[in-house]
Amino acid sequence: MSEPIEFYFDFSSPYGYLMSEKIDDLAARYGRKVKWRPVLLGVVFQATGSAPLTRQFPAKAEYSLLDFERSARFLGVPYRLPSRFPLPTQAAARTYYWLHGQDCGQARAFAHAAYRALFVDDRDISSPDTVVDIAAGLGLDRDKVATAIQSQEMKDRLKAECEDALAKGIFGSPHVIVDGQPFFGADRLPQIEKWLETGGF
Amino acid sequence: MSEPIEFYFDFSSPYGYLMSEKIDDLAARYGRKVKWRPVLLGVVFQATGSAPLTRQFPAKAEYSLLDFERSARFLGVPYRLPSRFPLPTQAAARTYYWLHGQDCGQARAFAHAAYRALFVDDRDISSPDTVVDIAAGLGLDRDKVATAIQSQEMKDRLKAECEDALAKGIFGSPHVIVDGQPFFGADRLPQIEKWLETGGF
Repeated sequence: MSEPIEFYFDFSSPYGYLMSEKIDDLAARYGRKVKWRPVLLGVVFQATGSAPLTRQFPAKAEYSLLDFERSARFLGVPYRLPSRFPLPTQAAARTYYWLHGQDCGQARAFAHAAYRALFVDDRDISSPDTVVDIAAGLGLDRDKVATAIQSQEMKDRLKAECEDALAKGIFGSPHVIVDGQPFFGADRLPQIEKWLETGGF
Repeated sequence: MSEPIEFYFDFSSPYGYLMSEKIDDLAARYGRKVKWRPVLLGVVFQATGSAPLTRQFPAKAEYSLLDFERSARFLGVPYRLPSRFPLPTQAAARTYYWLHGQDCGQARAFAHAAYRALFVDDRDISSPDTVVDIAAGLGLDRDKVATAIQSQEMKDRLKAECEDALAKGIFGSPHVIVDGQPFFGADRLPQIEKWLETGGF
């Protein structure tokens, strides 16, 4: 039995969003499961001395905005640049880990809903209230979600997940690990597919 | 009649090398020509405040070395990491532009030979003597090539080409422009193909 594919991402990462719309179906075609692991790119960038694509130099920022949209069209995924971008994603990531402790399927559904809220419906998912609304839309109890977002347990959990990701060499989003092999970027989907198909190349 | 595809690259860029082995055939399948434009990434990085992938933070450097090799295997292109990497590529780029002024086909043949000398045969193409050897292997006159490499005319030409590339928003290698649309990275080959196939998407 193969280990699950690990999918590291930040909820404000456009390429992470594109990967989120593709990785489960791709894995399923090869009988594989995927473990989703939201992290905070702010923590990752601080540790590595890096910066978001749109806050590097102007030519790269301009290209990145164009490439986000074109890559979404290429992959057939609905996308628009959020009004606020990038933004902090603690509330969404903590909600994900809280749900994951109870029901993996619900956590996955929430992750898709949060990503689509940001990149399709242009909602400000940095706001805990918005995250509570998104969770409520999936039938979850508003008060319990609001409490989880502010809980020390989930703050510690997210911090530990970020540290774990850094220890594994994660430096951006999306970062996918298949059989110990790291693949960085939504543009590595064809290589991931070939890896799954051939068992390594 | 469509404008030629523009292919910007540095002779020490592994992803530039991978693109160089693919772009002409891809373009030809859609009846398009390619204009090759070597530039100096050192000049580009200085202007943009960027750095080579392998001289950024350790996790990214380590990943990049792995990804160069895996991407080459994925594309079916022979590749090994050169002993000296990255390295200055003035001699190769000046030779290219000098040849281009006389015979485009010979310039193209030289560019392939220089890239393969570095990434297949591990030759130090930063050395003008090595570049002269490579050119001599294509039947070119050694003295004329050696003179061209040191000529003020070719120094000025390469400088002008780098400035022109920066003005067009080029920030790395490979950078391909199709119908005014920029594509950065060898991993954008599938998007370039779809663009050529559909006339834009």
